Amino acid sequence: MEFKVNSKELEKLLSKLYPAVPSRSPISQLENFLMEIKDGKLTAYASDLEVALKASLNIVSEENVKFAIPAKLIYDMVKTFSDTTIHFQFADNGKINVTTDKGKYKISYLDADEYPELPSFSTDDVENIEKFSINGLDLKYIFDKTYFALSKDEVRPAMNGVFFQMGEEGLKNVATDGHRLVFINKKNAEFSYNAEFIVPERAVSILMKSLDDSDVTLYFKKEGSSTVSFVLNDVELVTRLIDKKYPDYRAVIPAENDNLLKISLKDLQDAIKRMMLFTTSSNTRRVKFSITNNNLEISAEDVDKGASGTENVICEYSGEPMDIGFNSVYLNEVLSHMPSESDILFKLYNPTKAAILEPEKKKDNFDLLMLLMPVRLNN
Amino acid sequence: MEFKVNSKELEKLLSKLYPAVPSRSPISQLENFLMEIKDGKLTAYASDLEVALKASLNIVSEENVKFAIPAKLIYDMVKTFSDTTIHFQFADNGKINVTTDKGKYKISYLDADEYPELPSFSTDDVENIEKFSINGLDLKYIFDKTYFALSKDEVRPAMNGVFFQMGEEGLKNVATDGHRLVFINKKNAEFSYNAEFIVPERAVSILMKSLDDSDVTLYFKKEGSSTVSFVLNDVELVTRLIDKKYPDYRAVIPAENDNLLKISLKDLQDAIKRMMLFTTSSNTRRVKFSITNNNLEISAEDVDKGASGTENVICEYSGEPMDIGFNSVYLNEVLSHMPSESDILFKLYNPTKAAILEPEKKKDNFDLLMLLMPVRLNN
Repeated sequence: MEFKVNSKELEKLLSKLYPAVPSRSPISQLENFLMEIKDGKLTAYASDLEVALKASLNIVSEENVKFAIPAKLIYDMVKTFSDTTIHFQFADNGKINVTTDKGKYKISYLDADEYPELPSFSTDDVENIEKFSINGLDLKYIFDKTYFALSKDEVRPAMNGVFFQMGEEGLKNVATDGHRLVFINKKNAEFSYNAEFIVPERAVSILMKSLDDSDVTLYFKKEGSSTVSFVLNDVELVTRLIDKKYPDYRAVIPAENDNLLKISLKDLQDAIKRMMLFTTSSNTRRVKFSITNNNLEISAEDVDKGASGTENVICEYSGEPMDIGFNSVYLNEVLSHMPSESDILFKLYNPTKAAILEPEKKKDNFDLLMLLMPVRLNN
Repeated sequence: MEFKVNSKELEKLLSKLYPAVPSRSPISQLENFLMEIKDGKLTAYASDLEVALKASLNIVSEENVKFAIPAKLIYDMVKTFSDTTIHFQFADNGKINVTTDKGKYKISYLDADEYPELPSFSTDDVENIEKFSINGLDLKYIFDKTYFALSKDEVRPAMNGVFFQMGEEGLKNVATDGHRLVFINKKNAEFSYNAEFIVPERAVSILMKSLDDSDVTLYFKKEGSSTVSFVLNDVELVTRLIDKKYPDYRAVIPAENDNLLKISLKDLQDAIKRMMLFTTSSNTRRVKFSITNNNLEISAEDVDKGASGTENVICEYSGEPMDIGFNSVYLNEVLSHMPSESDILFKLYNPTKAAILEPEKKKDNFDLLMLLMPVRLNN
């Protein structure tokens, strides 16, 4: 049994799959690519058993075979070759002889049945299957705005992913860690059914690296989906879903925040970045906003270091004068995920209730809202 | 007491000194810049007590003062300002009030006498003082070629720096960790005296970041120098020297390596990089060279992973056929510090004695030689 493949084409294929290979897994077989050659087509897989990636390539081969090969070794090796033909030959001793114009190499392979079963999208229950397509850049936008806010804390598994909710108001996505929340609504999409699921962090992280302006098609089940399939170009990503109830985000977003503050994003970011220097000694990283008529005074004090700072930023404010504290690191993160060309609108209720932040100008067809919990002011 | 300084000029000054500030020191005072204002000139210092940096700036000030100020806080703050005037005012409560067009900040300062005594270059014993100048790029070349080879192992303190040796044959520099050695000789420099000293790793590392094509002047004592001063542009670096006897490197460099191998640097590097993939399981990271008439066979075997590779590289060889093993990581590092445009000459004696590597074309006025100890072949 033997087959041949162009080095650059194989490199491209493996580069798409490599992000799903776990760098260290208790199941060492997962540190391989699973490869299937069938009717002149090489299909390769990589997985950590939560997320699986699959991609294909036409090659020269007379026979069919399925095997697993060390992912890091073969990928690192293929990357070093210039444009050439790689010749794979299966020997009897459990090795593959790899030959190029540079030299000869032997690599141990595994039989395919030693590789664990991959997560897959079941096509049973066909009536229940739905699909929808979204431009890759739109999906990337959604992930860019939400990913930072999802919880990395394993004690809250429902929050360890990005929430998808489809219905007649379009596609809604949410991420939160309890301190801040991002809500985004793609309005130019309409669904004749309601469906929802939570895509885990690792799937989002891998997708963010792969998305471009090609369309992506999602396959899922309207009810009780345990996996979702994302098909983009020649790559399929299947991910297990987080099998938990997502928190009721609508109950958290306040409706009565009538104190409105409009401010330049850049001016505010500049000031917050400096104020962060005065918050490094405390856990809450607190900055204080003192808002009066069209003036925002921002201050921070590092008691341990005996250092403090105060700045004034021009704003437009309609509401009661208010002192409110925020975690400067969280605030800075929220601001850095706002559209950069826009002013920012704060909607406030009082110093103990969640603040709403919105960009003044929103991306076409997208609603975007971020929520930030205040921190207590002692004085 | 007050003074004013332009933000961009202060940023530039502090950026030169900041590399010498220890990020964590048991002597917390060292996490400050020491600043002295005298007759309209601000001189700032940073040190970890091994290396001290000093730079100056003309400013607007009526009075003289000396104080210490938290380095990271002031540097991070100054970096965020656009081009503006920063106004420093000393308050009675141990604070400096800092005012800019952006806001007001308070920073605690220390009295200068709380800052430890800096390493300095003593001008006593003036007869014993020597100096010489070298172009910054030449000194950078010397450090670029030697730095990687010095020992980071504290049990061999003499090797924890770059050796300087001045005499009638010019400037000689050496670095070694016992596995490999770099010798470099700047021949177009002549000294009427003999002097030698070991510049510690941290001083070399800081200098490498600062050197440009301006001349650098070194001040030292012909005998018993405990410090050396490097003066470059407006910055002075004083470093303590390593007070140990440097190993006799001349005794280590073999003179009878008559087996000569000439090979393309790029071809060899490409092959070694691939072979390194087959050496990750072993401590010695061994690659085997099998040298016959004008052919170099390079091979490596990873017994744990059941993987191996063999490549042949064209070369010119005059000598006995020889099998010799090298640590692939050390060899790769040595090769990556060779001049990239040149072929490489190996001078070999036998499989147990040090190999000499030289670039075929050397930089004008520089002699360069690297030594690499072989590793044992079991078969």
